Amino acid sequence: MQPATNSALFVQSFARGLEVIESFGQTPRMTLTEVAEATGLSRATVRRFVHTLVSLGYMRANDKHFALTPKVMNLGFAYLASQPLVELVDPVLANLSQELGQSTSVSVLDGTDVVYIARQETTSIMRINITVGTRFPAYATSMGRVLLAGLEAEKLDEYFAAADLTDVTDRTLTDEAALRSELGQIRKQGYAVVKEELEVGLASVAVPIRNRAGVTVAAMNTSVAVTSQAPEDLTELLPPLQAAADEVSNAL
Amino acid sequence: MQPATNSALFVQSFARGLEVIESFGQTPRMTLTEVAEATGLSRATVRRFVHTLVSLGYMRANDKHFALTPKVMNLGFAYLASQPLVELVDPVLANLSQELGQSTSVSVLDGTDVVYIARQETTSIMRINITVGTRFPAYATSMGRVLLAGLEAEKLDEYFAAADLTDVTDRTLTDEAALRSELGQIRKQGYAVVKEELEVGLASVAVPIRNRAGVTVAAMNTSVAVTSQAPEDLTELLPPLQAAADEVSNAL
Repeated sequence: MQPATNSALFVQSFARGLEVIESFGQTPRMTLTEVAEATGLSRATVRRFVHTLVSLGYMRANDKHFALTPKVMNLGFAYLASQPLVELVDPVLANLSQELGQSTSVSVLDGTDVVYIARQETTSIMRINITVGTRFPAYATSMGRVLLAGLEAEKLDEYFAAADLTDVTDRTLTDEAALRSELGQIRKQGYAVVKEELEVGLASVAVPIRNRAGVTVAAMNTSVAVTSQAPEDLTELLPPLQAAADEVSNAL
Repeated sequence: MQPATNSALFVQSFARGLEVIESFGQTPRMTLTEVAEATGLSRATVRRFVHTLVSLGYMRANDKHFALTPKVMNLGFAYLASQPLVELVDPVLANLSQELGQSTSVSVLDGTDVVYIARQETTSIMRINITVGTRFPAYATSMGRVLLAGLEAEKLDEYFAAADLTDVTDRTLTDEAALRSELGQIRKQGYAVVKEELEVGLASVAVPIRNRAGVTVAAMNTSVAVTSQAPEDLTELLPPLQAAADEVSNAL
């Protein structure tokens, strides 16, 4: 559905510059040579983009190393600032986290990933740090499955055509037929539970946030350590989670 | 100090493309004509950048309107993902917010602004929604004053040369000499208190987060409604706030 990147309208230099910014997500400080290696662009090309970013205040130089400045958040923040959802969600998640004593999050689907747009952390039970902007493969997460369960059939086919279903832990469900059956179950019961499929020791339960038309636009979840004194049955967390998601859905 | 934007190395088309992305921070859905008006670029130029963004999945079209997708967060959050500070701060802020029953934040200085890099919200006492990436003029905020108080003399002169000291509320301190004297006081006492200078009804207290070399790298604050049953003297909030900031400073 996306317009071709070989169209005459496509601005190659803009695309390359964005690639340079994204490459710093992996390695925060790089020399020109390292950026060239990370992007596959020539060192001379990289030099021009880095120069431009420094001129505009998006990047700073230190010795021969370059790093992004907080100004680049203006680019990503333009998305967040434009989402009425984000504004509604933060206080709701804060109350929910306090009530449950657990971390809570809201995410949306972007391509084959879930992307966090809000999060309230209580303790760090995940080895991976999660902040707003973090992404995970949708099929391996409770929020992702709620979002996939809310897709129209055609969009779900597109998802499976594009997704790379590989193990994240040795418990990750990676069989398309098994996942489709799980999504059917989630659609029926209205929530998703995932245990140790994204990270060993971690379980989570997620429910949909719907707009006025009843379309799933985001998912809300809470995560617990499966080894703690957490309720064996995650569905005990469901009533307050559902109430919080409904509060957001009703305000949309 | 920044390299010139008229250098042969400067990639004008990249700079223009970034400007197109940033313009969506003000207005989330725009037609090509509206983007052209917002950026001052021609409609034909805007069309090429928007086409490129759609091709790369950073933007999507709906009727004749365009909006950013969550993928743009990959650009802004490359910065956040690269900050060890962000990883440390979230659980500390969550505990602090719960202990104080108040919203807490961490921000850094970027140009003449403070930019939020972490936030835990309890209630929305501000009319303005604050998320990660939000920026305010440094001189009018408690975190900004802590950060300015930590600058070397030369950098502080640069700040005052660049800053536009205008009223935010009718209580905002905007006189350079008065602000410099206030910064001296903050440097001596180790914290900043701001009452209703950023928003009527809102007060906040901030302390520095320092790296191993003792340099202020960020500020942590808590905000309270001045009209609520909040402690008249904000310094009552100081011991837990200071303990939380020290916890982060010691881990850096």
